Amino acid sequence: MQLRNRGELHLLREIRRRFSPVSDAPGSGVLVGIGDDAAVIDSKGKKLLVTTDTMNEGIHFDLDFSSPFHLGFKLVSVNVSDIMAMGGSARYLFLNLSMRENADETFFWELYEGISAAMELYRVELLGGDLTAAVHDTSFTATVIGEGDRIVTRGAASVGDRIYVTQPTGDSACGLELLKRLTPESREAVRRERFIAGRPGRQESGGQRDLEILVHSSATIVSWKRTEPLLARHLMPVARDPVPLLPYASAMIDVSDGLFIDLSRICDESGVGARVYRDRVPLSDALHYAAEVMELDPFVLAASGGEDYELLFTAPAGSVPGAFCVGEVTAGERVVVDGDGREMPLRGEGYQHFGPA
Amino acid sequence: MQLRNRGELHLLREIRRRFSPVSDAPGSGVLVGIGDDAAVIDSKGKKLLVTTDTMNEGIHFDLDFSSPFHLGFKLVSVNVSDIMAMGGSARYLFLNLSMRENADETFFWELYEGISAAMELYRVELLGGDLTAAVHDTSFTATVIGEGDRIVTRGAASVGDRIYVTQPTGDSACGLELLKRLTPESREAVRRERFIAGRPGRQESGGQRDLEILVHSSATIVSWKRTEPLLARHLMPVARDPVPLLPYASAMIDVSDGLFIDLSRICDESGVGARVYRDRVPLSDALHYAAEVMELDPFVLAASGGEDYELLFTAPAGSVPGAFCVGEVTAGERVVVDGDGREMPLRGEGYQHFGPA
Repeated sequence: MQLRNRGELHLLREIRRRFSPVSDAPGSGVLVGIGDDAAVIDSKGKKLLVTTDTMNEGIHFDLDFSSPFHLGFKLVSVNVSDIMAMGGSARYLFLNLSMRENADETFFWELYEGISAAMELYRVELLGGDLTAAVHDTSFTATVIGEGDRIVTRGAASVGDRIYVTQPTGDSACGLELLKRLTPESREAVRRERFIAGRPGRQESGGQRDLEILVHSSATIVSWKRTEPLLARHLMPVARDPVPLLPYASAMIDVSDGLFIDLSRICDESGVGARVYRDRVPLSDALHYAAEVMELDPFVLAASGGEDYELLFTAPAGSVPGAFCVGEVTAGERVVVDGDGREMPLRGEGYQHFGPA
Repeated sequence: MQLRNRGELHLLREIRRRFSPVSDAPGSGVLVGIGDDAAVIDSKGKKLLVTTDTMNEGIHFDLDFSSPFHLGFKLVSVNVSDIMAMGGSARYLFLNLSMRENADETFFWELYEGISAAMELYRVELLGGDLTAAVHDTSFTATVIGEGDRIVTRGAASVGDRIYVTQPTGDSACGLELLKRLTPESREAVRRERFIAGRPGRQESGGQRDLEILVHSSATIVSWKRTEPLLARHLMPVARDPVPLLPYASAMIDVSDGLFIDLSRICDESGVGARVYRDRVPLSDALHYAAEVMELDPFVLAASGGEDYELLFTAPAGSVPGAFCVGEVTAGERVVVDGDGREMPLRGEGYQHFGPA
């Protein structure tokens, strides 16, 4: 059977089943093994977190959309996000860069500038890795090691806890939809933009003009200012600092594959159900605006679009500053409740490698 | 300028230069940063070693030569070898596997069996990673975390030290040359062989018949028994345990790119010269046999062939059990001395990614 018919989740589950007895052995120094955002190793009482993620050309990125600068920044961000989703802080970075031999050297150095920008933002240090040729596909892997005091896994949500998300989701998926529809000129303008993402005192980019997208084959102008947050979130996502949430969070994950699929993972690991109120799922103004122009359902993007890298967590009832409550943890099924009180099954759909198309 | 004209070493040197100020900052917890076999992190007095390496289809391996079982085993071995080359012992494994969507599921599970065989041999535990689709190129990255007490870097060789290698080199490169010349039937027979490499009580494989290779377009029979160690070393190399050497070694590296290029790295990092006696470079009987059949120079294979994963180290004068002395560390140039006492420059040539062809 071909991998495309198997599904990534099936394979990962199998791997976990086959290897878990070793990983969970007492005295091995392993506090959290396969199956969470990062592994946790006990090193003389210090908790080390380790995560690694690969980005492949044609699968995770399109060089027509993303500049090497964007990719370098995103590569670091998505790995740092996994450390933060465990409640940790990132410290050390390792890079494996596979590039075509005919790639231009400027590609390499622009990639490095993006990596450097992220390293500075997250204060991580590059400690090693390798640089190799690839025949066809550009491929980047980063490994990040972090430290944590209180580790927040996916598996500790309790019935009665509330479900929170740090910021509206769907922006990244909406940004990708925009990119797909941009005219070549506008796309190239976006590609050249270095979104100085998520920094305090972020500058408005003065030079960027409004963008032109194609809707039903006709060109439509969309506001740069209103779509820029969506493009920035897709091209240069910023990992959320979990520190303000640590006094509250019982279980946590970063939204990499989609709000609902990642919530399903918390439910799977914690052995609980969930009730999400559709009207409480936060949607950004930018998402509303761009989804309307493109005639897309903003809620579908928010619930199923991936790569926002917001933190999704559960916490005992009570207000959590700086987060949106979208529902509660239950002992029952996973459901979405609409404005009229009707319940529908919450489907953990999202991007799956090797999944049937 | 295209990367192919730049050379991996130039790029790595530049990366190291640009990032080294951060990595070497005191108090950062970094004992060894970029530029050795593995990074070393100080974690509450415990020394953690981290290394990561990628293997790309068409660059590092050919699926016509290697089975998924071989590749899985080798992927773990080459990373464990980097930990051992620092004097450490491997503990934890992280895997990033990128495979084509039309790959057969058996490919995936055979890969895992090879990985498992190596995990068992080295007693490492799988703690995480990811599994992603790739458009064209199968690509594997492993990250291994180990522990060490006495760390042996590349940078501590002293003038007057002797230069040692644990076993003859060149076998892996010679094995690759054999593979290239095998007839399709013999190649497939080798591909199916699961070399139970490096284990005590290794079984003679009973079923394997002698192999057929092409020399000057005519078929020649080579002995399976005499070539099997070469094929095993190329397809399923075993990392050498450094523990017996730790009382002696001053500087150490594993021979991944070639004996001379890896010796040059010790010289670069230690700021020393080297004198290697050509007649003392050990050559295996198998290498002599197969090189003669293929009309290749066995010394060139031993000096410049990569992927043996033997340990190359320096130690103060005096005998070191279980290792071959090939020369000495000097304050002068890097030279090879032939049987007549003539000196020639020691060229650190070996495989370099993005190097001019």
